[in-house]
Amino acid sequence: MLLTLDLVGIFVFGISGGLVAVRNQLDIVGVVVLAMATGLGGGVLRDVVIGAVPPPAVADWRYLLMPVVAGLVTFAWHPAFGRVERVINVFDAFGLGLFCVAGALKAQEFGLGPVPSAALGMATGVGGGIVRDLLVGRVPVIFRYGELYAIPALAGAAIAATGSELGVAHGVIAAPAALVTIGWRLLAGWRGWRAPVPRMSPPPSS
Amino acid sequence: MLLTLDLVGIFVFGISGGLVAVRNQLDIVGVVVLAMATGLGGGVLRDVVIGAVPPPAVADWRYLLMPVVAGLVTFAWHPAFGRVERVINVFDAFGLGLFCVAGALKAQEFGLGPVPSAALGMATGVGGGIVRDLLVGRVPVIFRYGELYAIPALAGAAIAATGSELGVAHGVIAAPAALVTIGWRLLAGWRGWRAPVPRMSPPPSS
Amino acid sequence: MLLTLDLVGIFVFGISGGLVAVRNQLDIVGVVVLAMATGLGGGVLRDVVIGAVPPPAVADWRYLLMPVVAGLVTFAWHPAFGRVERVINVFDAFGLGLFCVAGALKAQEFGLGPVPSAALGMATGVGGGIVRDLLVGRVPVIFRYGELYAIPALAGAAIAATGSELGVAHGVIAAPAALVTIGWRLLAGWRGWRAPVPRMSPPPSS
Repeated sequence: MLLTLDLVGIFVFGISGGLVAVRNQLDIVGVVVLAMATGLGGGVLRDVVIGAVPPPAVADWRYLLMPVVAGLVTFAWHPAFGRVERVINVFDAFGLGLFCVAGALKAQEFGLGPVPSAALGMATGVGGGIVRDLLVGRVPVIFRYGELYAIPALAGAAIAATGSELGVAHGVIAAPAALVTIGWRLLAGWRGWRAPVPRMSPPPSS
Repeated sequence: MLLTLDLVGIFVFGISGGLVAVRNQLDIVGVVVLAMATGLGGGVLRDVVIGAVPPPAVADWRYLLMPVVAGLVTFAWHPAFGRVERVINVFDAFGLGLFCVAGALKAQEFGLGPVPSAALGMATGVGGGIVRDLLVGRVPVIFRYGELYAIPALAGAAIAATGSELGVAHGVIAAPAALVTIGWRLLAGWRGWRAPVPRMSPPPSS
Repeated sequence: MLLTLDLVGIFVFGISGGLVAVRNQLDIVGVVVLAMATGLGGGVLRDVVIGAVPPPAVADWRYLLMPVVAGLVTFAWHPAFGRVERVINVFDAFGLGLFCVAGALKAQEFGLGPVPSAALGMATGVGGGIVRDLLVGRVPVIFRYGELYAIPALAGAAIAATGSELGVAHGVIAAPAALVTIGWRLLAGWRGWRAPVPRMSPPPSS
């Protein structure tokens, strides 16, 4: 269950990393490396923090294979993906949903309470994207003006952690929790929903 | 003792993170997330390195609550704080002093010698600020031209580590060690004390 | 054996970090701190991931002393090093080769299989340079357009991991593995060998 969530999440996050690399004119090695950093970054962070070392993302070749394949697929077929920025956002939303849930459930399995599990699930979900964006000098999406990103992530992680705490089977709670994150994030992008901004701060002109 | 140092340090570092976020026009979620990354970053780094996992910053809800409150307070009342850059520096100096001491003492408790404890204390103190500045694309304060930052940090951490090694009670050594870092850092800023710069390198024109 | 590889790697990577600091007009503290981050970053990452905590880079004062000396040497004598960018690349290549091999062999000793060991060896080698470049706002060399960096790193790590898996003594396999990485990397720089770039993406004009 966790394995499937993790592997699919790594793959779609890997594609988002590969697309960001293509957009930044990286060569084939940069595309694969950025796909690996994006796909594996959040999970390695989570595993190191909860003491699950060596993390499967490092010790299990299937985890390593996923982002390599994602990077190569992106490198080869990215022209078919159309407007890159929009496609990045869709893959990123799916990776976010899957990782928030996987992170929250794995933290529960390692004995953390529901509040820490939700927080760590959110960190797992947003971690890979932050690493991806920092490595190529983009503003991490979580810090973009008014963008709804962390709240949907926290919502999915909190649903998963609460469900698990209440004894709901992980296989039952995972799908709705991930769908809340993915759906909220995509709807926010399409409808232009925004987070509140500080008082007396006009939006940046650039 | 360590708990109090940690919690107060997290709160003041959280405020410095929130102020940097406000200055960079982040929305309310960005303010809270940057407050969390700044307040918790150094301690998580320290705990992962010494094997204290899961770190209290993740497993204990009080640690999570502190920077959230700090972020919300900053978001709501930052106009009352006046010239933001100067206020950031004051909160940063207090966080630096508290974390350098807490980091050095915790490293000692986990069996490290005095030199590694001082180094790790310094890393704990500067870690959160580096994470904060990298996330919004600022030059980390530790690398700003001629700014006295790492040396006061190392001084406080070294005093704490040496005192602890010599058997001084942690509650006795913590306050003077932290005050050395905080006082030196603030005086350096007010008086314009500078670190030596490389030979034949003129100061950057910008 | 691993100790020697690690210490020499830390020293040469430390010099590369010190030179980048000098080039970015950092003061003496910035030079030493960047030398420490560059020299110790990759190894700390590796040790935290495989559960070798506290890492020797933190707990052993010899590991701490190396990059401090490297930073001070660079600060004092950098004018004698001539064209800085080219010298950075040579020291970086040696650090890369030594760390890829040390990382792969240490991962094997901690029970990882040959594929994960090669991947972690590569991450150990490239980690310090990524930290160094991120801290001063450079594009990490691993992501520079067409630059051959990750592939030589992976090659050396893979040779070391495969040799160790086949029972070759670490002292025998280490030198040729490191030389493959170092030689390939330096030759790629001198001869202008390049990695493939994405279809239909012109090279960046800047």
